[in-house]
Amino acid sequence: MKIAVLPGDGIGTEIVAEAVRVLEVLDLKFEMESALVGGAAYEAHGHPLPESTLKLAKESDAVLFGAVGDWKYDKLDRPLRPEQAILGLRKNLGLFANFRPAICYEQLVGASSLKPELIAGLDILIIRELTGDIYFGQPRGRRTAVDGHFPGAEEAFDTMRYSRPEVERIARVAFEAARKRSKRVTSVDKANVLETFQFWKDIVTEVGKEYPDVELDHMYVDNAAMQLVKAPKKFDVVVTGNMFGDILSDEAAMLTGSIGMLPSASLNSSNQGLYEPSHGSAPDIAGKGVANPLATILSAAMMLRFSLNQPEAADRIESAVKHVLASGLRTGDIWSEGTKRVGTREMGDAVVAAI
Amino acid sequence: MKIAVLPGDGIGTEIVAEAVRVLEVLDLKFEMESALVGGAAYEAHGHPLPESTLKLAKESDAVLFGAVGDWKYDKLDRPLRPEQAILGLRKNLGLFANFRPAICYEQLVGASSLKPELIAGLDILIIRELTGDIYFGQPRGRRTAVDGHFPGAEEAFDTMRYSRPEVERIARVAFEAARKRSKRVTSVDKANVLETFQFWKDIVTEVGKEYPDVELDHMYVDNAAMQLVKAPKKFDVVVTGNMFGDILSDEAAMLTGSIGMLPSASLNSSNQGLYEPSHGSAPDIAGKGVANPLATILSAAMMLRFSLNQPEAADRIESAVKHVLASGLRTGDIWSEGTKRVGTREMGDAVVAAI
Ligand SMILES: CC(C)[C@H](C(=O)O)[C@@H](O)C(=O)O
Ligand SMILES: CC(C)[C@H](C(=O)O)[C@@H](O)C(=O)O
Repeated sequence: MKIAVLPGDGIGTEIVAEAVRVLEVLDLKFEMESALVGGAAYEAHGHPLPESTLKLAKESDAVLFGAVGDWKYDKLDRPLRPEQAILGLRKNLGLFANFRPAICYEQLVGASSLKPELIAGLDILIIRELTGDIYFGQPRGRRTAVDGHFPGAEEAFDTMRYSRPEVERIARVAFEAARKRSKRVTSVDKANVLETFQFWKDIVTEVGKEYPDVELDHMYVDNAAMQLVKAPKKFDVVVTGNMFGDILSDEAAMLTGSIGMLPSASLNSSNQGLYEPSHGSAPDIAGKGVANPLATILSAAMMLRFSLNQPEAADRIESAVKHVLASGLRTGDIWSEGTKRVGTREMGDAVVAAI
Repeated sequence: MKIAVLPGDGIGTEIVAEAVRVLEVLDLKFEMESALVGGAAYEAHGHPLPESTLKLAKESDAVLFGAVGDWKYDKLDRPLRPEQAILGLRKNLGLFANFRPAICYEQLVGASSLKPELIAGLDILIIRELTGDIYFGQPRGRRTAVDGHFPGAEEAFDTMRYSRPEVERIARVAFEAARKRSKRVTSVDKANVLETFQFWKDIVTEVGKEYPDVELDHMYVDNAAMQLVKAPKKFDVVVTGNMFGDILSDEAAMLTGSIGMLPSASLNSSNQGLYEPSHGSAPDIAGKGVANPLATILSAAMMLRFSLNQPEAADRIESAVKHVLASGLRTGDIWSEGTKRVGTREMGDAVVAAI
């Protein structure tokens, strides 16, 4: 088994280093190999996703990813910007199924913007389709408008699209996941406006018939954005497209108030996966040793469970993290009165010790 | 001056009736004419936006709209569903500028999901482009995929697009609105992924140079969905496209916890406008006389200010609503311990009396 370790930019290097230490202490049988990605790869090789990095990712069973991006790359042409690396990895590895849990840890309820009774015990799993939709649909570009409100004007355009097998496979992922949880799926669409999402809704409904034990409901994306604020605990498994999933998974993560705790997994059909924290590269605190490594450490646990077939090792990491939280250690992002503030490294030490 | 009154479905008829009474008591010089729209129009005329209703709307200076929709129309073909009426009105009247205030009234802070200190005093204005984007872009439909992940498979697709003049005019609306407020605009895009929104961002930046007194910043839509939850008061004027605006304006409205209080305005380039509450038709409570009419009454105030050039009458309505809230009257949706629960009609009576 082989893990590609891609720390990336900003706090990426610091938080991935802690996850690697945690993996090492478990003393499992796999090889780890690191490579540059994002802005760091652009600086060294002129491209955010160099051939060598992509090759390493492809031949590995799993990718442990930190974060990419920094304001200083904002002026680069789009294909050279750091976030293109993540889009390129998703596309080239066919990572169509993105798992984004939004969990509110008991000890961190106070970090949320929401009133405690609305958020305590939250445990949502957002399943976002990750290789289709308007993210990759062709054609896209700029041209002269031939119709619309201003024929003859300059315009830009993108194509939203989903094919039947793409919707079927992500729907199955959602129903299977629901079977292991509370057996409820909410499919989020905009069928009242978009052809793509009427099609989505129709197919999810069809696939749902294969899972009579799972309760399926449908919700428009604008309503989902509202219900997440109003009563987030009513959701269990949520499945949606790439664009809506981008928005809703971030909204849901922020509801917990502790996005520094939330891992994510992106899988392809052979369970090869990319694992990364739900938060970004936080260039403002990079290099200071204060970033929270727990989302990355928990991403490593997801990696062990989903791609490396080591569920017990995954459990050990997750228990260790719970233990460390219970012992009162906190990085700055989740710190509150009465708890002990620690840095990235100390937090990693504590997880290692707890294992 | 003429107002088209389109109550629509569900609670639409009840809440619009109260707004009409409020307008009548102001004794201004205008004519009001009612027509069916949405499901009600479909039942009577076989179409949610009959020619006669569209004609009335077009020849009026403003449309006072209630709400449309009911689960019982879910099985109709899309072009016959109630919400097509609202899309048809936007398109045919060219209502490109949608104003969606998200205001948290002092007395209703407790209704929010958010902690009081995060929401008290909230006053955001979301300006959503309303006639472009993926809502109306052609081509759209179903076909056989010729490329993508599954060539040969059935697929559905839609076209996202914005032309230069469409972005310019909505950007100007936002900058002008900001001049009357705190002189800050946040433009929300997804320039890191979409050609359409890189174009949007470029043009908003260009137009911003004409408004050196207004501070402009740019935010990705996923981040905006997070920041709205984390620190909503950091926003002032937000401008975005039709699809992102649909999601974010609903999210922002729900943050207040009192969506039953929030009006909206949709304007074209000659200040002809459609005014409607931000909430929906609530079929579950329709006909019970319990719906909150205040969002519709406040929409009538926006109508007086924006389309009918009667700012003093608008002020009178808004003051009356504040007075009624201060006196402790509440419909069920905003009721809390220590306040007096009233029905739709009594709430209307109270506003009329306060005027
Ligand atoms: C960086 C960006 C392209 C990416 C996305 O939009 O998918 C990010 O927001 C995410 O959710 O992983
Ligand atoms: C009913 C629907 C077509 C509409 C929209 O998506 O614009 C609604 O959600 C709104 O925001 O007014």
